[in-house]
Amino acid sequence: MRTGDKHYQSLWFEGEYPSEVFIINQVFLPFRFVTGELCSPEEALTAIIEMKVRGAPLIGATAAAGLYLALLKAPPGDQNDLYLEKWAERFLDARPTAVNLARMVNRLMEKCRREKSREEKTRRAWAECRLIIEEEITACRRIGEHGLALIEQIFRKKNKAVNILTHCNAGWLACIDYGTATAPVYLAHELGIPVHVWVDETRPRNQGARLTAWELAQAGVPHTVIVDNAGGYLMQKKMVDMVMVGSDRTTIRGDVANKIGTYLKALAAKDNKIPFYVALPASSIDWNMENGLAEIPIEERGADEVRFMEGTWKKQTIHAMILPRQHPVYNPGFDITPAKLVTALITDRGICPATAEGISSLFPERS
Amino acid sequence: MRTGDKHYQSLWFEGEYPSEVFIINQVFLPFRFVTGELCSPEEALTAIIEMKVRGAPLIGATAAAGLYLALLKAPPGDQNDLYLEKWAERFLDARPTAVNLARMVNRLMEKCRREKSREEKTRRAWAECRLIIEEEITACRRIGEHGLALIEQIFRKKNKAVNILTHCNAGWLACIDYGTATAPVYLAHELGIPVHVWVDETRPRNQGARLTAWELAQAGVPHTVIVDNAGGYLMQKKMVDMVMVGSDRTTIRGDVANKIGTYLKALAAKDNKIPFYVALPASSIDWNMENGLAEIPIEERGADEVRFMEGTWKKQTIHAMILPRQHPVYNPGFDITPAKLVTALITDRGICPATAEGISSLFPERS
Repeated sequence: MRTGDKHYQSLWFEGEYPSEVFIINQVFLPFRFVTGELCSPEEALTAIIEMKVRGAPLIGATAAAGLYLALLKAPPGDQNDLYLEKWAERFLDARPTAVNLARMVNRLMEKCRREKSREEKTRRAWAECRLIIEEEITACRRIGEHGLALIEQIFRKKNKAVNILTHCNAGWLACIDYGTATAPVYLAHELGIPVHVWVDETRPRNQGARLTAWELAQAGVPHTVIVDNAGGYLMQKKMVDMVMVGSDRTTIRGDVANKIGTYLKALAAKDNKIPFYVALPASSIDWNMENGLAEIPIEERGADEVRFMEGTWKKQTIHAMILPRQHPVYNPGFDITPAKLVTALITDRGICPATAEGISSLFPERS
Repeated sequence: MRTGDKHYQSLWFEGEYPSEVFIINQVFLPFRFVTGELCSPEEALTAIIEMKVRGAPLIGATAAAGLYLALLKAPPGDQNDLYLEKWAERFLDARPTAVNLARMVNRLMEKCRREKSREEKTRRAWAECRLIIEEEITACRRIGEHGLALIEQIFRKKNKAVNILTHCNAGWLACIDYGTATAPVYLAHELGIPVHVWVDETRPRNQGARLTAWELAQAGVPHTVIVDNAGGYLMQKKMVDMVMVGSDRTTIRGDVANKIGTYLKALAAKDNKIPFYVALPASSIDWNMENGLAEIPIEERGADEVRFMEGTWKKQTIHAMILPRQHPVYNPGFDITPAKLVTALITDRGICPATAEGISSLFPERS
């Protein structure tokens, strides 16, 4: 997407067989736009753990790129790829909830294991990284096209700006380009269909206020930031036409793991008869899981995410303590929106009900 | 409640016919414990508007005290109490959602209008202020006793600490003493029934993290702070035994206006079959309203509450900008929890279903 006068992806390579991967370091947004280079698997892993990169598709792609870098850096004479296998384990352990990370690590490792020489493995890993990135971009563009139809439908009915509520950041920063939940929005905006996005702040890391609002402002999409508590009231007052969010992992029955608080918005949408859509590429579907609440591992994150808040004060970027140390904190990163609350899934293959039948109708090769 | 080695109310007088009212200036908590004096109706009004005092019962009492101060300060020869009537109007306009404010202003004005001389009016206003404060304290203590039975019931069943989720601050700081939603918690804790409170941070002003957590820590009640987004997940995972919140205004059919985000927790409680209780004194029931969503005025507050965050950094108290000015903000202060989501109301008269019949069974004189 355009940022200033340049087109950016949230992760990119320069040249053939490069020795580094470029990212936008998302921890500095919106206060500073900083790009960075990952030159080793250590740096790729740290970027994932410290959330310099985040979002299900992006951490999957970053882990794949990290394994490519591991191949470049492997000590000579690494018997049976022990170095590479160790790195695969470390990436798999980095963040548990998004299925994309495990999927991309396993995909890349499978391809590499089939190759004999270090050179062939490296060539294969590099090809696979590029393919993953291309696939994610294509998937997001297709999600945009499918989701656009839903926005158009509402616009034709009301003939006024379509109000879309979103939670966290399922934008191009979370993916490689376009985004999942934002792709239909960007497309509608480009086509002149008036849209307005209610951006949930998304505590504790404020990805809505910090990333989604920034993305939308860059693209000139009208938007308003609200605290996470406000969405229910907006729906009660009929100020929301549709809810559209991303997903970190969706089961074959349509249960959706997404950023903590998504479930509350889904409940409010149901109570107010507002459609609740989840936009996701096929890479976020976990074909091995059925019951989201029972099976999807939910990451618990540190107390400091709740205790401290980043901001600016007297022209300095600061990290303010907003909750004294005497108070314990519990900080789960995701929740499960059960399929019964999801109006439909918007995938790169099309739109389907959040049911086993719906999903397998779009992905018959999986059933 | 005890704070350090002293017993405090959130508002108090010293001596007879005093010329000032004492408050805890809540905007400095938890970073600093600061008390203040209100010496004029201007100062009382400012304290309400700037939320040095907040919470439905407390702003009602502060407005009453402000009118008493207005009587003390009225210019000599104020014909027909024009000065007093003007102040009554200004207090009525200060904050729209909590019914207590209008109720206490109207109550005090009615009493004063019946008196002839300035001296009699002043005496009456002073008596009425003390009565309001006593009544609110008594109401909270009774809410505590009635609510205690609900906590005991759960404890007898599970024989482990009872996990109570609360939103915003319906504690003694919001009332005069004991609190509404916290009164049963404090009583249970005193009686040795193990309780643990999940404290919603409560964006944008963080009354949960700043005030409720502070109150609970002062009283030694085990508690954990969570972001507002997390409550649904905790309920999904059966980590909450009951939800207990306060109310700024409850209609005669049992619809509840409370701090923005309450409705989302009520939906999650319903979906997970967890009891959702609203604790309120009779002074928070609006006998003239039926349909909460259609009738209760919802205060819209300024963008800066969302845009800035208070905290400490390098030993200074700071006010950090967390959302750049380019992003518009919408900031409604309250939402409506429809009666259908409320398991029961805990009032000073006892516990009743959130229905017209339930409420009038406890307050037969009103029906």
